[in-house]
Amino acid sequence: MGSRVLRVGLVQHACGNDREANLVTTIAGIEQAAAEGARLVLLQELHRSRYFCQQEDARHFDLAEPVPGETTARLGELAARLGIVIVASVFERRAAGIYHNTAVVMDTDGSLAGRYRKMHVPDDPGYCEKYYFTPGDLGFSAIQTSLGKLGVLVCWDQWFPEAARLMALDGAEILLYPTAIGWDDTATEQTRSLELEAWLTIQRAHAISNCLPVLACNRTGFEPREPDSAAGIRFWGNSCIIGPQGEILVRADSDAPAALVADIDLSQSGELRTVWPFFRDRRIDAYGELLKRYRS
Amino acid sequence: MGSRVLRVGLVQHACGNDREANLVTTIAGIEQAAAEGARLVLLQELHRSRYFCQQEDARHFDLAEPVPGETTARLGELAARLGIVIVASVFERRAAGIYHNTAVVMDTDGSLAGRYRKMHVPDDPGYCEKYYFTPGDLGFSAIQTSLGKLGVLVCWDQWFPEAARLMALDGAEILLYPTAIGWDDTATEQTRSLELEAWLTIQRAHAISNCLPVLACNRTGFEPREPDSAAGIRFWGNSCIIGPQGEILVRADSDAPAALVADIDLSQSGELRTVWPFFRDRRIDAYGELLKRYRS
Repeated sequence: MGSRVLRVGLVQHACGNDREANLVTTIAGIEQAAAEGARLVLLQELHRSRYFCQQEDARHFDLAEPVPGETTARLGELAARLGIVIVASVFERRAAGIYHNTAVVMDTDGSLAGRYRKMHVPDDPGYCEKYYFTPGDLGFSAIQTSLGKLGVLVCWDQWFPEAARLMALDGAEILLYPTAIGWDDTATEQTRSLELEAWLTIQRAHAISNCLPVLACNRTGFEPREPDSAAGIRFWGNSCIIGPQGEILVRADSDAPAALVADIDLSQSGELRTVWPFFRDRRIDAYGELLKRYRS
Repeated sequence: MGSRVLRVGLVQHACGNDREANLVTTIAGIEQAAAEGARLVLLQELHRSRYFCQQEDARHFDLAEPVPGETTARLGELAARLGIVIVASVFERRAAGIYHNTAVVMDTDGSLAGRYRKMHVPDDPGYCEKYYFTPGDLGFSAIQTSLGKLGVLVCWDQWFPEAARLMALDGAEILLYPTAIGWDDTATEQTRSLELEAWLTIQRAHAISNCLPVLACNRTGFEPREPDSAAGIRFWGNSCIIGPQGEILVRADSDAPAALVADIDLSQSGELRTVWPFFRDRRIDAYGELLKRYRS
């Protein structure tokens, strides 16, 4: 089997209150990654705005837009111009009262190859996503592009091995996670270190258990919970490209913008799955209780 | 909620051809761990013998024994004398032509608290387990002991997030993996490093995604495929005790015997699951395809 090397990239940066300025920053990063040869570029979660989910505030619904819409049009045009695939993240207004945290895939011809609506929606202090986002109802379906089939998931999904597995079972050749995660500055150094390490580890594990490369793209910068408040989230960056044995190929800093690229070989997955035949041996006859909330 | 600190241990060593000598070595390690305060001790996979699965040879079925049998009797007596729980591994002869790779749990009173028959059975060069072991038919059930509920799995199971999750959903408070895994000496240094790191990472990930401590106990030593052959497996040790955020608390060397202990706090899991509420958010309505071999 011949190699199928694909240069992939990701764009990490801080976001401000100006949606247009954020997109300009993102586009500059995409162009940089493309100039370095990336044929697929992953963006961070909700890259057009600050992470507005720190508070429940009905005014933030005004940030939403339809899909297709302005963001997909502009990124589609860019994808076509550069001849690359772009995996972006949009606060989707689907209908009155129905909003989603949606990842969109723009193909090399600029068309919308598909969308994924975040299935696992978090809600904990500083991440009030259950208020804003209706849980996805499109399931875990890999998206076909001209470069390969993509298992696009979003942030909180990255803690659920079920989601990665379902994408792998649907033929995904790469797992991709637009993300917004960070530290609480009041946490201890030890807690912050454990959290970042856990985040890197769980994603490396999705690579390992599915023999697939993984891309995760996170934002940077401190965003206050309310204007001028000291409380908020310090987004930890560390966007990374991971090989199919869980090896980190490139990894960004925690506090600087980055447009990183790395080569992944899509033919490796098939080879690895013959050396490590996990998919042959899944005990699907005995997994029924995975569909339960708890077994007692 | 008060803390529930439990000192746990594991015993890693090389095995020779003498079943009795192997058990004497194991018992010495258990006694050492108990002397250091361990109240639960995990043993490596098939610790009474060499890893006989490198070749298909019908004579090796003579190594099997019933459960309960000699090994459970002797380890049960030891567990009662020391007042500890022992998680051991037995080549179980269940009936004519039905053998299992079975983990057994001896409670503090010496009784057999339960058994787990390896559900995922590997088969690849050097690991001919499908020849020897009938796949387990007891499912993924956690075993209640006087010290807590144990999610006991075996080796190849450790690559399947489904198995860890099912044990967590059954109320397991600790995940335990008796293991026999090693390097092919002809592999490159890079391959060997990737494999060991993947093995550590996948187990740390089970801890993270389930907010549970994990114990993995592996053997050491080179065992030739055939007497005096240069081909064989160099078992890589690295037995470890991992906290519920994936942090490695203690880890043994790759080539030396070890009786390691560490303190784990069983109350941490409940606290972590409120900070990281993964179990609240599993999309059980959308996981049905996990029960399929593949989706196309």
